[in-house]
Amino acid sequence: MPQGDEPVVKMRLRSRLSETFPTEVPAMELSDKSSRQLFAELKRTNTRKRFGFGRKPALINVDLQKAYTCVGEFATAYETDPRQLEYVNQLAAEFRARGFPVVWTYVAYMDSGEDCGIWGTRSNTPDSLQNIKVGSRRSEFDDRLVIDHQRDIIVNKRMASAFFETNLGSVFNFHGVDTVVVTGGSTSGCVRATVVDSLSRSYRTIVPEECVADKHEGPHFANLYDMAIKYADVLSVAETLEQLRRVGA
Amino acid sequence: MPQGDEPVVKMRLRSRLSETFPTEVPAMELSDKSSRQLFAELKRTNTRKRFGFGRKPALINVDLQKAYTCVGEFATAYETDPRQLEYVNQLAAEFRARGFPVVWTYVAYMDSGEDCGIWGTRSNTPDSLQNIKVGSRRSEFDDRLVIDHQRDIIVNKRMASAFFETNLGSVFNFHGVDTVVVTGGSTSGCVRATVVDSLSRSYRTIVPEECVADKHEGPHFANLYDMAIKYADVLSVAETLEQLRRVGA
Amino acid sequence: MPQGDEPVVKMRLRSRLSETFPTEVPAMELSDKSSRQLFAELKRTNTRKRFGFGRKPALINVDLQKAYTCVGEFATAYETDPRQLEYVNQLAAEFRARGFPVVWTYVAYMDSGEDCGIWGTRSNTPDSLQNIKVGSRRSEFDDRLVIDHQRDIIVNKRMASAFFETNLGSVFNFHGVDTVVVTGGSTSGCVRATVVDSLSRSYRTIVPEECVADKHEGPHFANLYDMAIKYADVLSVAETLEQLRRVGA
Amino acid sequence: MPQGDEPVVKMRLRSRLSETFPTEVPAMELSDKSSRQLFAELKRTNTRKRFGFGRKPALINVDLQKAYTCVGEFATAYETDPRQLEYVNQLAAEFRARGFPVVWTYVAYMDSGEDCGIWGTRSNTPDSLQNIKVGSRRSEFDDRLVIDHQRDIIVNKRMASAFFETNLGSVFNFHGVDTVVVTGGSTSGCVRATVVDSLSRSYRTIVPEECVADKHEGPHFANLYDMAIKYADVLSVAETLEQLRRVGA
Repeated sequence: MPQGDEPVVKMRLRSRLSETFPTEVPAMELSDKSSRQLFAELKRTNTRKRFGFGRKPALINVDLQKAYTCVGEFATAYETDPRQLEYVNQLAAEFRARGFPVVWTYVAYMDSGEDCGIWGTRSNTPDSLQNIKVGSRRSEFDDRLVIDHQRDIIVNKRMASAFFETNLGSVFNFHGVDTVVVTGGSTSGCVRATVVDSLSRSYRTIVPEECVADKHEGPHFANLYDMAIKYADVLSVAETLEQLRRVGA
Repeated sequence: MPQGDEPVVKMRLRSRLSETFPTEVPAMELSDKSSRQLFAELKRTNTRKRFGFGRKPALINVDLQKAYTCVGEFATAYETDPRQLEYVNQLAAEFRARGFPVVWTYVAYMDSGEDCGIWGTRSNTPDSLQNIKVGSRRSEFDDRLVIDHQRDIIVNKRMASAFFETNLGSVFNFHGVDTVVVTGGSTSGCVRATVVDSLSRSYRTIVPEECVADKHEGPHFANLYDMAIKYADVLSVAETLEQLRRVGA
Repeated sequence: MPQGDEPVVKMRLRSRLSETFPTEVPAMELSDKSSRQLFAELKRTNTRKRFGFGRKPALINVDLQKAYTCVGEFATAYETDPRQLEYVNQLAAEFRARGFPVVWTYVAYMDSGEDCGIWGTRSNTPDSLQNIKVGSRRSEFDDRLVIDHQRDIIVNKRMASAFFETNLGSVFNFHGVDTVVVTGGSTSGCVRATVVDSLSRSYRTIVPEECVADKHEGPHFANLYDMAIKYADVLSVAETLEQLRRVGA
Repeated sequence: MPQGDEPVVKMRLRSRLSETFPTEVPAMELSDKSSRQLFAELKRTNTRKRFGFGRKPALINVDLQKAYTCVGEFATAYETDPRQLEYVNQLAAEFRARGFPVVWTYVAYMDSGEDCGIWGTRSNTPDSLQNIKVGSRRSEFDDRLVIDHQRDIIVNKRMASAFFETNLGSVFNFHGVDTVVVTGGSTSGCVRATVVDSLSRSYRTIVPEECVADKHEGPHFANLYDMAIKYADVLSVAETLEQLRRVGA
């Protein structure tokens, strides 16, 4: 981190100047609003056309494992909407019933942590990412989830995106997937990374808002905002289910 | 977008409840602060160990093309720190002088726009992403940049990340790159995506704060915050240059 | 290369032994046949179910550029079936007429050759791979080809496979491609690599035999054999066209 | 497969013609030699500069699992050099002793076989690829192998190449790997695919000849030939060990 916050100050000064000299083009829009306020505003005003569902959606549930869901047990856990996992189960059941793929990802690493790479080198506590070991309690899916271990696709990912160095690309090609619904956490981490990769791979991408969660309000809403503007349809879970039921109808 | 903003309201209510029943674990930290305030706070308090420079850094300058830099000419352009391009030139010169790779990426698409994929289907104005055509003025690098077209690596990327479906992976392997410095724009779009992919590929990742820019203050600081917490060292350009000069010394 | 050819000798001896002691399981099937003979045999006896065409095929024409097609001008050029390019044009016209993607790849490198990586370090003559420079005559498509530069997808690849670090993945997802027809050269190099990646990505993969070419007969037929056994339907161009015309019918 | 072998015939005729009309450029070199003979010739005459070892090699042992190594038990198994596994153990011990990464890959699929994709759709017998199930005997490493399950990197790959949709890329970046030694089987399948990807990613690539095996002699030698010409140093295991011991010295 830079010492102090000079760059910020410099920019603010410039902004004051541009108020004084109105011929100057305002270069960056400024705002004192919180991300929650900005996202709420966007929801009221967004008129951007949606990606919508195509013909073959897949559901990716990102890292709904105890390290992140067992609030009270692990310092790394968090909860946003208290009904998140219930909604995720509902979505998964609906996907399965219609024959669409259901994916559950989790992170877990070797004893050496070397598969966490440089990411696992900044701290070394039991809560550090690279210390979520294969087979550990932190790596287990939350007990409240309904997972079909026979049928669903389980992916041990190591990095932020569910697509990064995993076999989802070829499996989705095999199934002709054209739409990806992303749930899980964190909104500002692995969900965001998965959404960016999903759209980059040219999948219509949907985020049911109540199904993603984060540790902090600021990044949660800031990333919902970014995803809604750039990469995904951010919908209520109710609307996601409604649209899902119309696929192929 | 969901109608109204019910999920937000629901969560806020829950937060009030947890103030009433203090035994309940606070599930998500709430805050009314703006992203600028949160990032300024983080800069003052962040004690996280840095990734630091390794032995062979590369510089990736993301999408510093007229569509995004010519404020006043294109509606999609923006400016954050007015000296951004000057700093980028300084970094590039320093990298070249030390024999380290310098990469310039830009986006540009076929006439059909099909290489922009589903991303290019939500709007169709001259400012739409898929309408930045190969050879167009919008696709040209900013005239203020000093690019060595013989020596530097020029990449026509199509998606957010500079690594996505481009040859940077093999070129960086060839050069033994272990550290990536990312500049350009937007902070909340292609810079963020490049940074996530860079760390995922296990490169030490550095973002010189004054060298990245965005259209809006909120996402700019929210993404600096996310990157600083999760994926990168966010440094001042002065400190980046100072560390760079010490590589191999 | 190992000095002498001991491993070969050792194995042959073992084979003699196993003829002597017929109770021993023959570990590797031996044969003095040429690849041409083995492939001809396979064509007569192969009863393996075909992948067949799906609903949306794409055509990838691999490296039909002067360095490899101008026999007499470049030492690296070759010709197998003299009507190869004519057949490729016919296939491309048929794909275009039916609205299916047509891709032309070529290799070409920076002046430094660094984007050829370690591959470009074993020789340094005008015919060396890394010396096929962007904009050079060697990098140009053969003049006999009919390419729609507006509509077809042109890809500057650097490595063997047409999919490696190129945007074909996302473009094919956008188009819902499920079948890939591969032509070009060399059979034992970039065609083979493209076919392996195509099947790995779960595309039904087709090779029209007369449309692929190689410098030497041995590798040409050995790779047709491998591809037919493992990765692709190897068809005559006539049958490829016939099957193509039935897609969607 | 095309009916009959007309394309072959056509080409042979052309070759006869070009003997008659010597002004015509011979377009493809013809030969009645077997692949074994061609490879033996190449070993005697090859003067091509080697890639050689860099500073940090990794060892990838490809699919040395019972389905492919238990000759007599599984129809899909094969053996070429009877000391193959002994040599592989020797290499692995040497890599470990020097702190270099050792990777063991295997194929194994979900009950549905969907992660085998279109590749798993041409047959459906117990020996079919997609029927090598996770946890099955066919998926187990050969009992003769000495694997350090704590320290070595174990990869469940699904497709031919050890790099395809696996985390070897990021792990190798983390370790600064610049050289890859490939053993295992089959020479004409997963070894070849791994070698092509290894070189494409710009790793110096080495194949110790006695350490790779195949079901049939023809493809074994044809692929050793292709790899030696195009993608790798094909060395004896003795020379590989000798070079390995000189790394960093």
